[in-house]
Amino acid sequence: MKPLLVTMGDAAGIGPETIVRAFDEGQLQGCVVVGDVDVLRRAGSRLTARIDSPADLADVPPGALPVLMPAGLPAGLAQLPLGHVDGRNGAAAARCIEAAVRLVQAGEAAAIVTAPIHKEALAAAGVDFPGHTEMLQALSAAPGEAPPPVRMMLANEELRVVLVTIHLSLRKAIEQVSFDAVLQTLHITQRAAAAWGQLRPRIAVAGLNPHAGEGGLFGDEELQIIGPAVQAARQAGLDVAGPFAPDTVFMRARRGEFDAVVAMTHDHGLIPVKYLGVEQGVNVTLGLPFVRTSPDHGTAFDIAGQGRADPSSLVAAVRMARRLVAAA
Amino acid sequence: MKPLLVTMGDAAGIGPETIVRAFDEGQLQGCVVVGDVDVLRRAGSRLTARIDSPADLADVPPGALPVLMPAGLPAGLAQLPLGHVDGRNGAAAARCIEAAVRLVQAGEAAAIVTAPIHKEALAAAGVDFPGHTEMLQALSAAPGEAPPPVRMMLANEELRVVLVTIHLSLRKAIEQVSFDAVLQTLHITQRAAAAWGQLRPRIAVAGLNPHAGEGGLFGDEELQIIGPAVQAARQAGLDVAGPFAPDTVFMRARRGEFDAVVAMTHDHGLIPVKYLGVEQGVNVTLGLPFVRTSPDHGTAFDIAGQGRADPSSLVAAVRMARRLVAAA
Repeated sequence: MKPLLVTMGDAAGIGPETIVRAFDEGQLQGCVVVGDVDVLRRAGSRLTARIDSPADLADVPPGALPVLMPAGLPAGLAQLPLGHVDGRNGAAAARCIEAAVRLVQAGEAAAIVTAPIHKEALAAAGVDFPGHTEMLQALSAAPGEAPPPVRMMLANEELRVVLVTIHLSLRKAIEQVSFDAVLQTLHITQRAAAAWGQLRPRIAVAGLNPHAGEGGLFGDEELQIIGPAVQAARQAGLDVAGPFAPDTVFMRARRGEFDAVVAMTHDHGLIPVKYLGVEQGVNVTLGLPFVRTSPDHGTAFDIAGQGRADPSSLVAAVRMARRLVAAA
Repeated sequence: MKPLLVTMGDAAGIGPETIVRAFDEGQLQGCVVVGDVDVLRRAGSRLTARIDSPADLADVPPGALPVLMPAGLPAGLAQLPLGHVDGRNGAAAARCIEAAVRLVQAGEAAAIVTAPIHKEALAAAGVDFPGHTEMLQALSAAPGEAPPPVRMMLANEELRVVLVTIHLSLRKAIEQVSFDAVLQTLHITQRAAAAWGQLRPRIAVAGLNPHAGEGGLFGDEELQIIGPAVQAARQAGLDVAGPFAPDTVFMRARRGEFDAVVAMTHDHGLIPVKYLGVEQGVNVTLGLPFVRTSPDHGTAFDIAGQGRADPSSLVAAVRMARRLVAAA
């Protein structure tokens, strides 16, 4: 298997220390970190091996953290304070992501696992994406073509949720729940499932409104938009059911009735995935031309550098990426 | 303690059988069922004792289910098919609720526990309430006065959630998230907490938008409405924090950081309460002039009469009602 790339994320957050800790626990075999050597040293790395290409991983001695430093990283990142927004950290995070996308598109790496970035730091660097997902989507567009339609999936051992809408206000999210958006989400989910080894996943669709609209009494998006999209997907051969009441469909999926749930809004989908704890949650971007996963938490500026950050979600993200690459 | 009243709910659903099963398990001590004797016999009750007043409970022999039949119940309910909408069942359910409210308002009973009703059956009987909560609210209005402001709370052993909006479309719910509605919810939550023994509960407020609006990037209700209401509540002496990102605040409350979470929408609040299973969930109406609880499930027409209905949530609702009455 080609190496996996792990981008360091915002240097002022918990990304670097979770990477070092996961490495020290022996969980980053076959991974190359894309980041700044000094930042990783500050995060506790005792031995780093700077490499120029993912293929050089084979020459890195055991016990040394393999780090690929992209061109154009700002100087002195390790001297910037932890836990604070800084445009230089935002710029560095963006450079790492861009480099990782180039490497995986060039066939030099198998997948990308991204440590958390900070939106304000990115914005301070002039990089205006609301999140990784949108940035990776833009970076993976072929020249002169529209970016591929992608969807965010959150998964843990119990539940896989794919979101129709993500980083926008709830008002705007409702506006964006269209027949095409729902149907496209179902097809993306179906195709992605093949990569995790299910050729015909049982997909449940959560409604938008309480009780899935209660037959039109509490909103008509289920009747006008979501239900017809479910029907169209069924006619295309997908195993899709719903729309179901949002408040019980995730419980039903957790008990094994469905393999994945498609949710209309960010929080309908993420509340149940995160309810039992964010440690095991993994974010997977579906629809990109490569495998990309990330831990299910943010930069946690409030605890950065204190040695309290839990690498479990990063480790789960690396495992998920390995599994998806192996199944592809 | 005065008797608790348990209304039988829709006779074609699982309400009556869960009542009989809970009674057979010894879980309905001190309770009087408000319903139809024949329906309860069909649901498996071996011995019923028809009484005319809750005070007669003292004379009911052990092993006999005490049933108070309200005037005006349609005849022949036990001959109607299970699992089907029928206006006669809707009318009967409404009569039971009305009778229970009268009895508790007359001081003859301590609290009401309601088995599930069916909205369409109610509507077929000309009773146009979207749910129990709204009906109880209307019934408890003093003559010539506006009904009391109420809120729905869902609780299990891990989590207590109070909802700002409930049975309406998500679009309309967003419109109803106002400064007054949020502040009133916080005050109702605070007052109700005294009844469960907490004089100063730690209340968390979930935002409406992803990431609680991300500083205004994903919607401004947190900045314009919810945040100011939280501030006003704090100035009034309440221990309130937020608004927090909806996708992690429930997990934080589950881990013990907060005693209750106020959620803006039906499904933000109910998804986490129901995620681990609806068996232990209890619905509590806050703000009524009496204690009212109910199981956290519907009529389940699909399994009515099959002996598969689980009485756990009804039992939890009875226990919660006892606890609230004892604490009041």
